[in-house]
Amino acid sequence: MTEVLREPRQDRSRATRQRLLEAAIECLAEVGWSGSTVSVVAERAGVSRGAAQHHFPTREDLFTSAVEHVTSERLAVLRSRAVDLPAGPDRTRAVVGMVELMYTGPLFRAAIHLWVAASSDERLKERVVGLEAQVGRETHRTALELLGVDESRTGVREAVQATLDMARGLGLANLLTDDRKRRQRVLDQWAAMLADALHQEP
Amino acid sequence: MTEVLREPRQDRSRATRQRLLEAAIECLAEVGWSGSTVSVVAERAGVSRGAAQHHFPTREDLFTSAVEHVTSERLAVLRSRAVDLPAGPDRTRAVVGMVELMYTGPLFRAAIHLWVAASSDERLKERVVGLEAQVGRETHRTALELLGVDESRTGVREAVQATLDMARGLGLANLLTDDRKRRQRVLDQWAAMLADALHQEP
Repeated sequence: MTEVLREPRQDRSRATRQRLLEAAIECLAEVGWSGSTVSVVAERAGVSRGAAQHHFPTREDLFTSAVEHVTSERLAVLRSRAVDLPAGPDRTRAVVGMVELMYTGPLFRAAIHLWVAASSDERLKERVVGLEAQVGRETHRTALELLGVDESRTGVREAVQATLDMARGLGLANLLTDDRKRRQRVLDQWAAMLADALHQEP
Repeated sequence: MTEVLREPRQDRSRATRQRLLEAAIECLAEVGWSGSTVSVVAERAGVSRGAAQHHFPTREDLFTSAVEHVTSERLAVLRSRAVDLPAGPDRTRAVVGMVELMYTGPLFRAAIHLWVAASSDERLKERVVGLEAQVGRETHRTALELLGVDESRTGVREAVQATLDMARGLGLANLLTDDRKRRQRVLDQWAAMLADALHQEP
């Protein structure tokens, strides 16, 4: 009986947490760091302020957890699509397109607000530096897996990192204006150069 | 006689303006948008608040002018060094290093604070969108000139744009931690790929 009662409560708690994390990303992406407080997010998620603070005692907890959690979720979705990727050179372009999606939506927009706020806030910076390293490693691993390349070959690791650095720069270029048209041409060219670098004879 | 008197006053005015623009970049890079006001910059530049407001009536004027002016200055310095660049493949790596410098110093740090603030401030956004387009064009033209390549060849324009997008992403990765070591490896690999793309037989 206890088990039966506990289960739904855990589910509810998990659902509340999930709603708060998603609302935190939306809020940060839309209004930036200065307007993003625990109260504002709680209201958006339809959760009481007390419940929000039970899950996330501080503003830093809420927003760093949100970026961490939503990034992991998105990367897991991308990895689940790996089986559908074409073989050969088309694969590189398809993966570059997947990476592009990661860096041009609300999640990247939220992350950039958090990164920039952290650059002039020591307490937040401490948390975001750890988050950045973790998110960077996980994204790199996912990109390698999707591309299906072997990192032990010279230059492969750096070419994959360059791809993620460029995607980050493209995300930044998309912050104020819709940069899609220009970006597609850049990504077509980049995917061709990347395919050459990844698959050339050693 | 009037001429003689006018000249030094114009010089003084120009020097004041220049000090304000440089202080604005330093201030924005160090404390971010919310702490960067005309008063704070005036104090840093050793200029009265009234004099600062004579040159720049609004906060938006001051900071967008600062990014515009300091970017133009830096690009002019880079162009003046074009004659010293080596020929052949070493040239590509040298230019990639020059682009790197543009995106990893206080100017880029200041610009990113301005861009991110503009993304949640309509009045500022209006100004920054125009600034972004102008700075983007000028940087692209400078990169082409330094690389000494012909944009009418297929893929050249996009490869140069990809370089600037990647540099922007590398600048972002350098915001919270010193990313120099990793960045050098990425740039070595990138320069090799870029040299291939720019100089391959059509």
